Amino acid sequence: MPGEFDLIRRHFTRPAAHTALAVGDDAALLMPRPGMQLAVSTDMLVAGTHFFPDTDPADLGWKALAVNLSDLAAMGAEPRWAFLALALPAADDAWLAAFADGLFACAQAFGVDLAGGDTTRGPLNLCVTVAGEVPAGQAVTRGGGRPGDEVWISGRPGRAALGLAALRDGLALSADGRAHCLEALHRPQPRVALGLALRGLATAMLDVSDGLAGDLGHILERSCCGAIIDLPALPLAPLLADGAPHDEALRAVLAGGDDYELLFAAPPARHGLVAAMAAHCNLPLHCIGRLTDRPGELLLREADGSLQPPTMTGYDHFAR
Amino acid sequence: MPGEFDLIRRHFTRPAAHTALAVGDDAALLMPRPGMQLAVSTDMLVAGTHFFPDTDPADLGWKALAVNLSDLAAMGAEPRWAFLALALPAADDAWLAAFADGLFACAQAFGVDLAGGDTTRGPLNLCVTVAGEVPAGQAVTRGGGRPGDEVWISGRPGRAALGLAALRDGLALSADGRAHCLEALHRPQPRVALGLALRGLATAMLDVSDGLAGDLGHILERSCCGAIIDLPALPLAPLLADGAPHDEALRAVLAGGDDYELLFAAPPARHGLVAAMAAHCNLPLHCIGRLTDRPGELLLREADGSLQPPTMTGYDHFAR
Repeated sequence: MPGEFDLIRRHFTRPAAHTALAVGDDAALLMPRPGMQLAVSTDMLVAGTHFFPDTDPADLGWKALAVNLSDLAAMGAEPRWAFLALALPAADDAWLAAFADGLFACAQAFGVDLAGGDTTRGPLNLCVTVAGEVPAGQAVTRGGGRPGDEVWISGRPGRAALGLAALRDGLALSADGRAHCLEALHRPQPRVALGLALRGLATAMLDVSDGLAGDLGHILERSCCGAIIDLPALPLAPLLADGAPHDEALRAVLAGGDDYELLFAAPPARHGLVAAMAAHCNLPLHCIGRLTDRPGELLLREADGSLQPPTMTGYDHFAR
Repeated sequence: MPGEFDLIRRHFTRPAAHTALAVGDDAALLMPRPGMQLAVSTDMLVAGTHFFPDTDPADLGWKALAVNLSDLAAMGAEPRWAFLALALPAADDAWLAAFADGLFACAQAFGVDLAGGDTTRGPLNLCVTVAGEVPAGQAVTRGGGRPGDEVWISGRPGRAALGLAALRDGLALSADGRAHCLEALHRPQPRVALGLALRGLATAMLDVSDGLAGDLGHILERSCCGAIIDLPALPLAPLLADGAPHDEALRAVLAGGDDYELLFAAPPARHGLVAAMAAHCNLPLHCIGRLTDRPGELLLREADGSLQPPTMTGYDHFAR
């Protein structure tokens, strides 16, 4: 069985584009560009909690990095560097080669250097930390939303949850729909270009990892607002076209995790500018509601105008 | 059982001294000072591999951060920010409170902001990422050593290994010695002040986490040098005074991990300046040998002048 240092060298040493010193010393050396703040995020993925232990390692490599880049996108930051800490039950060469391929495919797609990391023995656990740059003062936080701002969601949220339901619970979808949903689950696309485009337009933003309704709560809390979501405005059409039953589609959009679409608020006066970004980024954007002046209160508006609180919330790793 | 967001808020939200935006958004925002490079390091600690599952959580909190700060010290970087990703089998409130106390004690001792993190459910696993600042071009890497440079080690290396042997194998030490060695094992002191003081003096440096002989190999490889270590110059005296048998003390110094002392090379012309740092940092510094022009060749010199290769190497997590 190869040793730790050999593993690192063989699978995780590839040329770095913008890192003074990468893998192989006590620390990596990064040189942020003048005037830039660093946005840094870290996520831990655990076998059995976040993914099936038999997940295709190439998909896992992609996803481990993609979900972190999504956090940077949600700040309007440009991804630059990644660090990988990896615990493995055994040094499985084929597994690592495939994992590294997926990871580097994502890194290359988004211009990210793998600048450092750690490998060790233990139950399968992936911890990725990413750093990106954003001009000082221009980051889009969760706390800038104001009553009256429109609420938007990108892409086709819910597909990842349907993919998981198809795998785990045998949910029937059309053949094409199943492929779309598994692709969304296994190869999420961080909305980096959209995040950058929304600097100066969005007042508050996050990426949906635990479900739209639950994650919107974080914006409401930080922005001291409430929100009304128009159920008829939710983008159910792609999920229905994938073959999902209506209720399953609604549940997937509101409470499904793992989509990594951007959820954001923007003033109505910027509606046209935001809508124009959909074409610019080649990505559907849906205006699904408004922020209100009732802090923490989230209501869903039915087609008949009636209002009700949501009954489905996000995924909390320690809640019962 | 409290939820994930509540856990984070309760245990890991404390005032940040120099972070624009810390725990609670998609990413933290850091503003490096002008002209500074960022040194970034990540380490993963796994229960059963790196520590006993019943380790005092306060000690574990201290150590999880300290071993990472040690990596920054080894680059001559000033620690500034830390990120904690934590997988826990269950949300144990008392455990988390003690762990957070230990972590923040270390953070406060070294002026570090906990700027972000992630908590999730899974087999106990701690992944800490730290970022520090170093003036551009002044970091001390592993690769600047030259033949003729003296080799130095700080502090009282070997105590952590003796502490582990006392716990695991019942090694008998004096009462004071056992206390010293367990302190070294559980509350390692990252040599931050020494690392900063050695900028411009040391040509190559690292922190000893896997044993002096094994880790010196990394300097030899990166610096394209060999080395001769003088066995009589090794600081065995503190370990003998702790009650360790001579051979056990020698093994602990050469092959013991977990000491986090700084191992570095410096030109003989700077011997006096380096020695003066011992007083400046209130820390013993030992000149234990020289770099040679025989790449990769490590030899130990006995008291009688005879040379032999080492038979004990560092700890490799995947080697058999």
